Amino acid sequence: MKKKVAVILSGCGVYDGAEIHESVITLLRLDQRGAEVQCFAPDIAQLHVVDHYSGDEQDGTRNVLVESARIARGQVRDVRELHAKDFDALIMPGGFGVAKNLSDFATSGANCQVQADVLSAVQGFVQASKPVGLMCISPALAARFFGQGVLCTIGNDADTAATLTAMGAEHQECDVHDIVEDSRHKLVTTPAYMVAQSISEAASGIYKLVDRVLELAHV
Amino acid sequence: MKKKVAVILSGCGVYDGAEIHESVITLLRLDQRGAEVQCFAPDIAQLHVVDHYSGDEQDGTRNVLVESARIARGQVRDVRELHAKDFDALIMPGGFGVAKNLSDFATSGANCQVQADVLSAVQGFVQASKPVGLMCISPALAARFFGQGVLCTIGNDADTAATLTAMGAEHQECDVHDIVEDSRHKLVTTPAYMVAQSISEAASGIYKLVDRVLELAHV
Repeated sequence: MKKKVAVILSGCGVYDGAEIHESVITLLRLDQRGAEVQCFAPDIAQLHVVDHYSGDEQDGTRNVLVESARIARGQVRDVRELHAKDFDALIMPGGFGVAKNLSDFATSGANCQVQADVLSAVQGFVQASKPVGLMCISPALAARFFGQGVLCTIGNDADTAATLTAMGAEHQECDVHDIVEDSRHKLVTTPAYMVAQSISEAASGIYKLVDRVLELAHV
Repeated sequence: MKKKVAVILSGCGVYDGAEIHESVITLLRLDQRGAEVQCFAPDIAQLHVVDHYSGDEQDGTRNVLVESARIARGQVRDVRELHAKDFDALIMPGGFGVAKNLSDFATSGANCQVQADVLSAVQGFVQASKPVGLMCISPALAARFFGQGVLCTIGNDADTAATLTAMGAEHQECDVHDIVEDSRHKLVTTPAYMVAQSISEAASGIYKLVDRVLELAHV
């Protein structure tokens, strides 16, 4: 029987949404390993839209669910329809969308709140003791998902690590090619583009994260 | 010395731009194989914007170069700056953006024209006898790039194949896991999502295309 994995996206583009490379590499590895995948995203407006060519904020509004559908080739569902009982594991790629759309970590730091529908969906997996994989900046939300003392990594950025510690997480430095595992919480994290200097560096850690999450998942 | 490869993108999203999975898998494989990559796109408005969640056309205009920058994490240049002398090979991922933005194949079929800056850039590689890789729907433009008699594949769709034949190309059916090579023109093609039922199927043919294009490239 195939393992069913939910992937939560946060838009489409590193500066205002889900990091595209991380998202696609996650989907690729899950499919290569025989998992059945369903993408989800919240049906909310993005915090803002960033022109990825100039780096400047641009006019207009975009919807996180609608933009996430670009990465998912249309196959994405509202995160309110994500229930842990229907899946064996959950993975959340990174990108500023995690800190801008799925939460307000980008503006509120240690005082951030997670978007209510996303929080509810992820906590369903936590309560069911089903494995969760968080990459790049997503582990910034680990303390909100799992509570005090959860072990995770965002790589080696001292300021971000200090913020995670202030939120109650235990941060462990990690190489781009490696993962950090909190066995008690069945949480696997990897730095990806928090550290990666190239797409193949990002892929090396993401492959390990996906493989380990699948090992921890029981059909 | 690293092989330098140019990648031409056509936006960001299968229905109105570059197919994201194909684009990312191309970038991943090129990086894994040690190539130096630069993305390019035309600085023009998209034909239209498609809501990838509903599948309907939506309001607003988007720029092909600016949206392509999402896939390239900001590292994309105007295709007018693409000169074959600076690169060893060229690859063009698919997506409707090829047929809607890089050309008007989606509306004009066999009578289509290629966007002038894109045509000029690609023909530079053709004239210099440097290898070119086209995937998914991109081989629809092969006859415009290479002239009559060029051998290529878009998989097994009879209508599309007939259109390519009407344009002067020689179409060869091809499995999603394989490539078709026109040795005389140093052109490599693969069906990718014209046939693929999953992302790993798409990847299998794209990996072969990238590997073969790099084999044909001389530093």
